[in-house]
Amino acid sequence: QYFTLLVCFLHIEHSDFPTGRNMLRDWVAIESDSSNVQKRPELHRMMETVAQKLRLMGGTVQLVDIGEQELPDGQTLELPKVVTAQFGNVSSKHTVCIYGHVDVQPAKLEDGWATDPYNLTEINGNLYGRGASDNKAPVLAWIHAVEAYQALSMDLPVNVKFVIEGMEETGSNGLDAMIMAQRDTFFSEVDYIIISDCGWLSRRPALTYGTRGNCYFFAEVQDLHSGVYGGTVIEPMTDLIGILDTLISPSGKILIPGIREAVAPLSDEEWKMYQDIQFDMDNYKNKIGVNQLMYSNKVDLLAHMWRYPTVSIHGIEGAFSDPGSKTVIPAKVTAKFSIRQVPDMDPAMVKKQVTDYLHSVFAKRRSPNKLKVTMVIGAKPWLADTHHPLYEAGKAAIKRVFNTDPDLIREGGTIPIARTFQDVTGKSIIMMPIGGFDDGLHSQNEKMSRYNYIEGTKLFIAYLNEVSQIKRTSV
Amino acid sequence: QYFTLLVCFLHIEHSDFPTGRNMLRDWVAIESDSSNVQKRPELHRMMETVAQKLRLMGGTVQLVDIGEQELPDGQTLELPKVVTAQFGNVSSKHTVCIYGHVDVQPAKLEDGWATDPYNLTEINGNLYGRGASDNKAPVLAWIHAVEAYQALSMDLPVNVKFVIEGMEETGSNGLDAMIMAQRDTFFSEVDYIIISDCGWLSRRPALTYGTRGNCYFFAEVQDLHSGVYGGTVIEPMTDLIGILDTLISPSGKILIPGIREAVAPLSDEEWKMYQDIQFDMDNYKNKIGVNQLMYSNKVDLLAHMWRYPTVSIHGIEGAFSDPGSKTVIPAKVTAKFSIRQVPDMDPAMVKKQVTDYLHSVFAKRRSPNKLKVTMVIGAKPWLADTHHPLYEAGKAAIKRVFNTDPDLIREGGTIPIARTFQDVTGKSIIMMPIGGFDDGLHSQNEKMSRYNYIEGTKLFIAYLNEVSQIKRTSV
Repeated sequence: QYFTLLVCFLHIEHSDFPTGRNMLRDWVAIESDSSNVQKRPELHRMMETVAQKLRLMGGTVQLVDIGEQELPDGQTLELPKVVTAQFGNVSSKHTVCIYGHVDVQPAKLEDGWATDPYNLTEINGNLYGRGASDNKAPVLAWIHAVEAYQALSMDLPVNVKFVIEGMEETGSNGLDAMIMAQRDTFFSEVDYIIISDCGWLSRRPALTYGTRGNCYFFAEVQDLHSGVYGGTVIEPMTDLIGILDTLISPSGKILIPGIREAVAPLSDEEWKMYQDIQFDMDNYKNKIGVNQLMYSNKVDLLAHMWRYPTVSIHGIEGAFSDPGSKTVIPAKVTAKFSIRQVPDMDPAMVKKQVTDYLHSVFAKRRSPNKLKVTMVIGAKPWLADTHHPLYEAGKAAIKRVFNTDPDLIREGGTIPIARTFQDVTGKSIIMMPIGGFDDGLHSQNEKMSRYNYIEGTKLFIAYLNEVSQIKRTSV
Repeated sequence: QYFTLLVCFLHIEHSDFPTGRNMLRDWVAIESDSSNVQKRPELHRMMETVAQKLRLMGGTVQLVDIGEQELPDGQTLELPKVVTAQFGNVSSKHTVCIYGHVDVQPAKLEDGWATDPYNLTEINGNLYGRGASDNKAPVLAWIHAVEAYQALSMDLPVNVKFVIEGMEETGSNGLDAMIMAQRDTFFSEVDYIIISDCGWLSRRPALTYGTRGNCYFFAEVQDLHSGVYGGTVIEPMTDLIGILDTLISPSGKILIPGIREAVAPLSDEEWKMYQDIQFDMDNYKNKIGVNQLMYSNKVDLLAHMWRYPTVSIHGIEGAFSDPGSKTVIPAKVTAKFSIRQVPDMDPAMVKKQVTDYLHSVFAKRRSPNKLKVTMVIGAKPWLADTHHPLYEAGKAAIKRVFNTDPDLIREGGTIPIARTFQDVTGKSIIMMPIGGFDDGLHSQNEKMSRYNYIEGTKLFIAYLNEVSQIKRTSV
C-alpha cells in the first residue's frame, strides 16, 4: 500500500504537475469575483467548468440551483449554482465530503499586483494569481488526489463527495439553505467534512481547529449640504473619523464596552498548547515585513491572532479615494469595519454593543449630521477537538508525507462554513490547509507555491487513506 | 448707448440663447477632466475648440505651449496649451483681460448624478453638466458679450483679452510660469484683470473681493504586513484615523497649534460690512439642506466661510472604498485633507505646523508604522479693495442689469490665480461671478441656470461699457 502511494506521489511530481498547473491557470483565468455583479457570467462559467471536470472524472455531479440574490438597488441576480459530486458509494467505507469554493476576491493590476492577477504566472517556484491559494489550488489538489487513485486504477479508500460553491467571498449567500435542504439526503451519508480553505502558520504543515467569526459593520454619516460650504457645517467626514477613533486605542485595545469581557479566559491547557507551537517571533516579523508586533511573546501573539477579538477598519465609501488632490467635501460617508468573533462572543450582542456605543459617542459630539449603524455580516466562531480521530488521521498523514508533527493552529480569519456545517449537519469537521503562510489571501500578489501545491496533493492522497482506517465506533 | 445695449440684451434673450446653450452643450460634452491623465486628449481638444471659436470671432489667438507635467511615476505628459486672444488694440481704450478655465473636476454618473454629467441637460430652467458653472458657461458668457457687440456692429468699448487655461482644477500647473514669461508682453498693456470663476452668495448678484488660499496635505501611513494578520500588528488605518481625529474638535475647532493664532483679527469695519450683507440664515440652511450650522449668527457664519481657516478631510486613498464588505486590511493608506488659508497665514509656516503636529501626535501613539506628511498645494489667499474704480464699475453694471446693489462677498474656496495675477502683473483684479449660489461646483449635479447664463451675459456686456468710463488717473 505505501509503495503504491509512493509511486502515485512520484507520478504527480514528475508528470502531472504541468497538467495541474495548466488546470490552475485555466481556473485562475476565469474572473470569478463574486462581489462584482458584472462578473456574474464568469462565475456561472466557473461553476460549469468545475462540474464538467468532475463529470469527466466519472463523478455523479449536480449543479444545484440555490436561487437569486437581492441587490441593494432591489434588483435580483441569479446565484452561481453549487456543484455537488460523488465518487464511490460503498456502504462499508467512510464517506468524506470536501468543501471548497472557486469564487475570488476582487483584484485589479493597479491595486499593486506585480503580474496580471488573472494570468497565472510562475516566478521562483510561486504561482501568482487571484484565487490561486484561496481556494482554487486546494480544490484542484483534492481533484488531483482522486485522479491519482484513478490513474493507478486503485479504488478510493473512502467515498468522496464534493461541495463546491461560488459565493464564499461575499458570505456564502444561499449555501446555508442548500445545506439545510440536503441535510437528510446528500449530507446524511457523510461521515466527515473536510475544509481546505485556510493556510499554514509557518513552513511546517498545520491542522486548523478553530476559526474566528466576524461581525461586519457599516457606519454611515450623512449630511445634505453641498460641497462648497467648508466652514459653515460640521462635515460628515469629521464626525466619521471622530467616531471611528473611539473603537481602538493606539496600542490596539478594543474600546467598545462589553466586547473584551465576553471573551472566554485563556485556560492553562490552552496556554500550554500555544507554548508547544514552533513559532519564531523574529522569523515571523521578518516574513510579514514589520518591525514591531503588538505583543512581544509567542503566546500573547498567537492568542491575539486566534482567540481574542480584533477590530479592523477597512475603508470609507463615499469619500475621495482616487489619486490626486480633489477638494470635495463628501455629504455621505460610510465606514466599513469588522470585529473578529471568538468564544464566547455572540454576534447579536456585539451588534447591540457596537450600535449603542457608536450612537452614544456620536451623541456626545452634538453633531447636526445623521448616523446610521448596520451589521451586514454576523458570523460565529468555530472550534474543534484536536484529539478527535479525524485530527489524529490528519497528524498521521502529515507525518507520512512531511515526516513531522503538524502545527495545531487556529485561523484568525473567518470561515463561516465550518460553523454552519457543524450546526446544521452535526458531522465532525476538519480544516486541513495546504496554502502557505505568506500566500497573500485577499491581498495583491496572492500565490500558491509549486511546493505546497504538489506536497498538498500528496497529503490529500495520504489523508484519504488514513481516514479509511478510522474505526467505526457508532455503527 | 443704453438703448443700443437694450436691443443687444433682447437679441440675446430671444434668439441667441439656444445658440449659447448649444455651445455650452458642445463644451460640456468634452470630458476635459484635468486630474485624469487618460482624458488628456480631451483636454487638448477642449483648448483647440476654445481657440477655434475665438479665431472665428476675429480675435488674434495664440495656443501657448506651457510644457509638460511630471507624473508621480516619473513619466511626463504634455500640458494643455493656454489660449490667449485679443480683440481690439486701440491705445486710447482701456484693456481688460478675462481669465477663465475650461478644465473640469472629475465626474461619474455613479457619484450620484441624476443625469449624465457630460450631456448638458435642461431641467426646470437649469442646465446640468460637469463644468457648466465651473467655469465653462462664464467663459462662454464673456465670449457671447463680445459677440453681442460684434452682432450689432458696435466697437468694443474696451480692448478685450482672454487667457483661458486647462489645468485650473489641479493647481494651474504651468500657468504661473506663462504669466511670468508674458508679463512684459501680453500682460503689459492690460489695465484690469477680470475673473468669473466663482459664484453668488444668494439670488442677488455679487462682487467678490477675496478668496481663501489652500494648503492640501497627504498623510500616508504605511506598513508592510500582509492582509491576513489582524490582531498581531497595529493596522495603518487605525493609526491614520487616530491622527486625523486630532485635526479638528467635534465642534469644528482647528486643533493644530499656531493655525488660529495666525489669523488677522476681525476689524470693526469688517464686522460692519458683514452686518450689511443681506443674508438670511434660515433661508441659507434650507437652501443647502442642513438643520444646523456651525455658527448661529450671520457675521460669525460669514466670517467662518470667508476669513477664518477650515480643515476638511476629503478621503483616504488605498483603503477599501467600493460598495460591499471586503475584509482587506490595507498596508498603505493616504489621507487627503486641506486647510483653507486666510490673511495673515503663510503656507510655508502652515506646512511646518501641520507636519510637526502630526508627527508629534503620531510619535505619542508609539506605532511601528511609518508616517509621511507632504503638502502638495500651498496657495495664498487674496483680498481686493471694494472701493477701487473696478469695483465701482461693477456695482454700476449690476445696478443697470439687475437694478440692485451687489452683495460684496468673499469666496470660501480657493482661486489661486487671483493671487498670482496680483503678485506677478501688479494689475488690479476684480472677481465678477455669474454662477448661482447653489450650482454645486465640484459636486454631483453641477448646473448653471438659464437665468444666470443670460443675465450674466448681459452683465458682462454692461460691465465692458462701465469699465470704458473709468478715468485714467496715472496715464
